[in-house]
Amino acid sequence: SNMVKVAVVGGEGIGPEVTTQSRRVLEWFAAKRNVPMTLREAQYGLIPYLATGKVLPEDTAEAMDEADAILWGATGGPETTEVPAAARKAGSLLGLRSKYDLYANLRPIVASPALSASAPLKPEVLDGVDFVIIRELTSGIYFGEPRGIETLPDGQRRGFNTEQYTTNQIRRVARSAFELARTRRNKVCSVDKANVLETSVVWREEVIKLHKEEFSDVELTHLYVDNAAMQIVREPRQFDVMVTGNIFGDILSDCAAMASGSLGMLPSASLGPVDRFGRRKALYEPVHGSAPDIAGKGIANPLGSILSVAMLLRLTLNRPEDADLLEHAVQTALASGARTADIAEAGAKKLSTAQMGDAVLSAL
Amino acid sequence: SNMVKVAVVGGEGIGPEVTTQSRRVLEWFAAKRNVPMTLREAQYGLIPYLATGKVLPEDTAEAMDEADAILWGATGGPETTEVPAAARKAGSLLGLRSKYDLYANLRPIVASPALSASAPLKPEVLDGVDFVIIRELTSGIYFGEPRGIETLPDGQRRGFNTEQYTTNQIRRVARSAFELARTRRNKVCSVDKANVLETSVVWREEVIKLHKEEFSDVELTHLYVDNAAMQIVREPRQFDVMVTGNIFGDILSDCAAMASGSLGMLPSASLGPVDRFGRRKALYEPVHGSAPDIAGKGIANPLGSILSVAMLLRLTLNRPEDADLLEHAVQTALASGARTADIAEAGAKKLSTAQMGDAVLSAL
Ligand SMILES: CC(C)[C@H](C(=O)O)[C@@H](O)C(=O)O
Ligand SMILES: CC(C)[C@H](C(=O)O)[C@@H](O)C(=O)O
Repeated sequence: SNMVKVAVVGGEGIGPEVTTQSRRVLEWFAAKRNVPMTLREAQYGLIPYLATGKVLPEDTAEAMDEADAILWGATGGPETTEVPAAARKAGSLLGLRSKYDLYANLRPIVASPALSASAPLKPEVLDGVDFVIIRELTSGIYFGEPRGIETLPDGQRRGFNTEQYTTNQIRRVARSAFELARTRRNKVCSVDKANVLETSVVWREEVIKLHKEEFSDVELTHLYVDNAAMQIVREPRQFDVMVTGNIFGDILSDCAAMASGSLGMLPSASLGPVDRFGRRKALYEPVHGSAPDIAGKGIANPLGSILSVAMLLRLTLNRPEDADLLEHAVQTALASGARTADIAEAGAKKLSTAQMGDAVLSAL
Repeated sequence: SNMVKVAVVGGEGIGPEVTTQSRRVLEWFAAKRNVPMTLREAQYGLIPYLATGKVLPEDTAEAMDEADAILWGATGGPETTEVPAAARKAGSLLGLRSKYDLYANLRPIVASPALSASAPLKPEVLDGVDFVIIRELTSGIYFGEPRGIETLPDGQRRGFNTEQYTTNQIRRVARSAFELARTRRNKVCSVDKANVLETSVVWREEVIKLHKEEFSDVELTHLYVDNAAMQIVREPRQFDVMVTGNIFGDILSDCAAMASGSLGMLPSASLGPVDRFGRRKALYEPVHGSAPDIAGKGIANPLGSILSVAMLLRLTLNRPEDADLLEHAVQTALASGARTADIAEAGAKKLSTAQMGDAVLSAL
């Protein structure tokens, strides 16, 4: 069948709260726009752990295995201390990224004019910012071996990890960046630390090689990671597509998210390889985390998760008009003054998570 | 003798230009305030390479070996391509950090109210920012072994590096942070990625241990590096002393420098261990680099180097009143409107490098 299978996994902290709203939005598209999909909801975290001894029980693993797209909420927070480290690790988000080989993590950074007031950057720096960070997500220092903690002969302890990239790992994520750039402003900035790290020397050489071989029509620049962190704050408008390794991408995308002033609104997509049927496993999640401090209060901003649904419509369902429709509805809701607490100006009315979901649905 | 020996090494790009001004300032303190020191100037980079085959010739090495403090300009830029990589590596800044065991790199981030206009952050975020990043500078992924580039059986290339920290390496830099915090607002924030890296697990455990053993009067918090990058942009006033490893410190300090809007004004000190005579080798340098695009034009901002002299007065010469005097003179010059191109508002008069040196000297 050509039904697309979506697994909805709210997870922990504010994850289930925001995902409830993005699920409503997804169901609207199924019902009103005939988007061909089936939804399957599954649990993750402390609750299934208490019932089954696993944070990621069989049933959830199966739902995710068979899904084309996973709509993920969040994980982490105080609940994690109630689960033994080994049980948690067995079903971790890092494990899922690895299991499904979700190597290309796309994080669009788009400044919302409506939110200038709550952004730390001046409007003249922020206005018009629109770029995508592509972070390699299945290799680098997150997964490199050897790693561990050892005791030295003199009794000291030593922690160690391995940063590493192979030619093919670099090429496939760089390819995603070049291909995406061609659909945008045709510019790629590759970020590394090639003045210090051999891993980065190979990274840079392979990006240059692939560019020369297949993408010489795309404008390619290179920045050292320290300079990139600066430039993201100084003049973020200069970027179109930025591509970098796992740990650098982790740091730079959070830096950029905050610079944009709308962490709670940012979506992400993590994409695996294209299989022989042309399918590509994908996990969609807001950039924000589980936010334990506000979990359970019904005040979290669901727009990061709702805009992740727009990415799902665009990338997995191949429905660009529907993605545009949803992104437009979010802008309409914002323009009409809809604000959750995190993006509200002092004294302004604050919507609950569910009310923000309502605002988007009524703008659709 | 109790003469303090200072080696002045301007280096490459704008390094010699800015160091000429900071040297004038240092000589003013020797002449007018009886600061007991001797100056020895030495060359570094392309020019000595052409004469001697070494970027760091014997004479310069000797001047630095015998110095208590090194006033360093900058290295890097187009000149580097005229020197074979091996010759450059033999005398590199990384090599000097390692040779003199300069493990504690102090980077103060202080917002200048006079410069709000040229900063990307809003004044209400920036005003009152005053913190110090202490970056570990002689270990971590910069120096970890094994490292290299290998060819895999399938013909692919693989670059790899080792991130690592030992107990003692962590303790000594954390100690610098706690001791500095006691002279300030008594707060230390330690930054790591302990949710992913074993190296960071050891880092965090040792920081906590040292805190409990000797510094429980200091307020200690921990942030993951991605969150730290965010918080530096979101609310930089929250920090007093931040301590972190080599690569995280490289990225975060540049991010913070730019957030402050005055990269050209930021000084740094890199400190070695205290020897049995109570002496401590130190290298002082501006945070900015060699800026090849403006080298030779006489328009670089010398304040980063001049404020590094203030750190030298404070930390090596133990002359806090003279350090205050110099920092005050810089503020006076700025308040009277003195601006180099990098910090000038549109339409304002722009001073040359030497004129900015004059402005500080006449404020002294
Ligand atoms: C929770 C953590 C392991 C994760 C990461 O570092 O990748 C998070 O920061 C992210 O960016 O998704
Ligand atoms: C030039 C480079 C090797 C250096 C570093 O990464 O340490 C620089 O960025 C710095 O911060 O001093």
